[in-house]
Amino acid sequence: MDSLLSIPRSVEWNHTHLTILNQQKLPNETEYLELKDIQSVWDAIATLKVRGAPAIGITAAYGLALAAHSYQTNSLEDFRNLLKKDRDYLASARPTAVNLFWALDRLMASIANVSSVADAKKALVHEAIRIQSDDENTCRSIGEHALSLFQEGDRILTICNAGSIATARYGTALAPLYLAKERGIRLHVYACETRPILQGARLTTWELMQAGVDVTLITDNMAAQTIKTKDITAVIVGADRIAANGDTANKIGTFGLALLAKAFNIPFYVAAPLSTIDLSTKTGADIPIEERPSEEITELAGTRIAPPGVKVYNPAFDVTPHELITAIITEKGIISGHYESVLTALFKEEIKR
Amino acid sequence: MDSLLSIPRSVEWNHTHLTILNQQKLPNETEYLELKDIQSVWDAIATLKVRGAPAIGITAAYGLALAAHSYQTNSLEDFRNLLKKDRDYLASARPTAVNLFWALDRLMASIANVSSVADAKKALVHEAIRIQSDDENTCRSIGEHALSLFQEGDRILTICNAGSIATARYGTALAPLYLAKERGIRLHVYACETRPILQGARLTTWELMQAGVDVTLITDNMAAQTIKTKDITAVIVGADRIAANGDTANKIGTFGLALLAKAFNIPFYVAAPLSTIDLSTKTGADIPIEERPSEEITELAGTRIAPPGVKVYNPAFDVTPHELITAIITEKGIISGHYESVLTALFKEEIKR
Repeated sequence: MDSLLSIPRSVEWNHTHLTILNQQKLPNETEYLELKDIQSVWDAIATLKVRGAPAIGITAAYGLALAAHSYQTNSLEDFRNLLKKDRDYLASARPTAVNLFWALDRLMASIANVSSVADAKKALVHEAIRIQSDDENTCRSIGEHALSLFQEGDRILTICNAGSIATARYGTALAPLYLAKERGIRLHVYACETRPILQGARLTTWELMQAGVDVTLITDNMAAQTIKTKDITAVIVGADRIAANGDTANKIGTFGLALLAKAFNIPFYVAAPLSTIDLSTKTGADIPIEERPSEEITELAGTRIAPPGVKVYNPAFDVTPHELITAIITEKGIISGHYESVLTALFKEEIKR
Repeated sequence: MDSLLSIPRSVEWNHTHLTILNQQKLPNETEYLELKDIQSVWDAIATLKVRGAPAIGITAAYGLALAAHSYQTNSLEDFRNLLKKDRDYLASARPTAVNLFWALDRLMASIANVSSVADAKKALVHEAIRIQSDDENTCRSIGEHALSLFQEGDRILTICNAGSIATARYGTALAPLYLAKERGIRLHVYACETRPILQGARLTTWELMQAGVDVTLITDNMAAQTIKTKDITAVIVGADRIAANGDTANKIGTFGLALLAKAFNIPFYVAAPLSTIDLSTKTGADIPIEERPSEEITELAGTRIAPPGVKVYNPAFDVTPHELITAIITEKGIISGHYESVLTALFKEEIKR
């Protein structure tokens, strides 16, 4: 099932090469890059030309499949050795991206039982394609479930970019907005610009505009005024990690939006795949908050916007306590209530399958 | 009473000329400009080299006194005609700045009863000096009252620049922070950068750093995380207009901070002179919210940070409902409780004097 909407994809496999959207050039330039060797794939990941955990994983998977195709050997042992070296090389492109290792290891596992180099090359491409298509299905399912919570004319507030170009397609928080557009349901999106990196201003507005979704940009400090005067009906965000009790780490600013949603008595939704839920993390207090360099705040596009030497606090994420989350929307359905027991039960069920 | 702190002033009278801080060049350059004629004063106001309602009024007042000094006539009638022309010229520099007209008219009124051109020239300078010194006293009084609400070690959150360089000296919301510094009381200030114009990042951090006040810069969407993890003890902001019922219009983002203060159960203070209170404005609903050009959000320092053609909502102000305001701090004291009756009583008292 496909649509005529132009929902941008950030990664596409083209047999002899990989095409990626250069997210570093957005929103000023829509540049697609053809990556023909492993070095350029490494570079695209390392220099953030591709971003978003699922999109990084998919790119790396195709990168490894691409590399394997150039191996000249017929010895399966040599092939595996070469592949292992290239796997480690790609894994070094962004050493903190869990999804990157996960995707590469899924590729390595896919050739466990092959009997020839030719079969191995085929298996790797197929597994990479499967990773992308699984992610697209996951996002689409999240979108279906989330869309059931919205109706014609709703005004939805979001932050950061939990969007199509961060995933295989559709995104997580943005997925219901694309599905609504496919079905002719009009939703109005308000996108927080998301300082300091401006993913909302640069990416979310861009990708929604590509698909013709009605989107309005605001600065982050306009959220309260926008909820009030534009009569926002719901807030929906993505997630970086969800603890066992439902506490959710996401882009800085999310926690504040959840508190505003409560003050205005509107629902606050988290849209994320099950892979984001980490039952070994008991509560939000166990999630370390990365603090990033002050230059992210004091400089913009090479221009200094704060005095030299100013002290800066720059947390990349915040944690929204579960009691502020109306529902968590996954590919398996909508979770609400006592997250701890529901999430635990859900994972037990998943393991049984 | 003065101090050894270098609390920056934005306007200073130097007999033959006016010295102003070029706020447009901050924070990259600390440039003081000598204004020697009325054209350069007009230009400084029109091109926002000087900003902040009181600072604009003071600059215009000195500008008019400066112009009057150059008049060659000995005829009081001719003098008044020339002055009227120059008054109108300066008033045109920023046609929406109420404080500008107020200051210029106060100067015009000051020569109502003079008997010579020489006396008139002297009276104008004296009145301009009085406007500045009145404002400094007002700010200092606000600071005294506000400081009584803080104690050693407190961590204070603010937005925009309700500071020294927007007034004669000390500012309103920042006044208690300077007085604390003078007295060796350590307060820690967290300044929201204040998108889209970045007054917090560019001006508030700069002026507090000049005086050695401990200040940390955050982006606006970090407020909730900062209140939580840095254990913020109070929020204090300035005001653009306060309605009869206490509803307060101030820089966009203020309303959101007030909601966060309530959620975290910390006090939310508004610091403003009585001149900001407008009893003819019944409630916040009667305050029009100016919407400004989209380029303020989509461009920064000449760089485009959002897609061409993106829809933007850019309200310059928001209104904080009185029930979220713990107290309004004026030069006459701290007001809380039922604002409508307290404010009305206060103004009746003022009129009686």
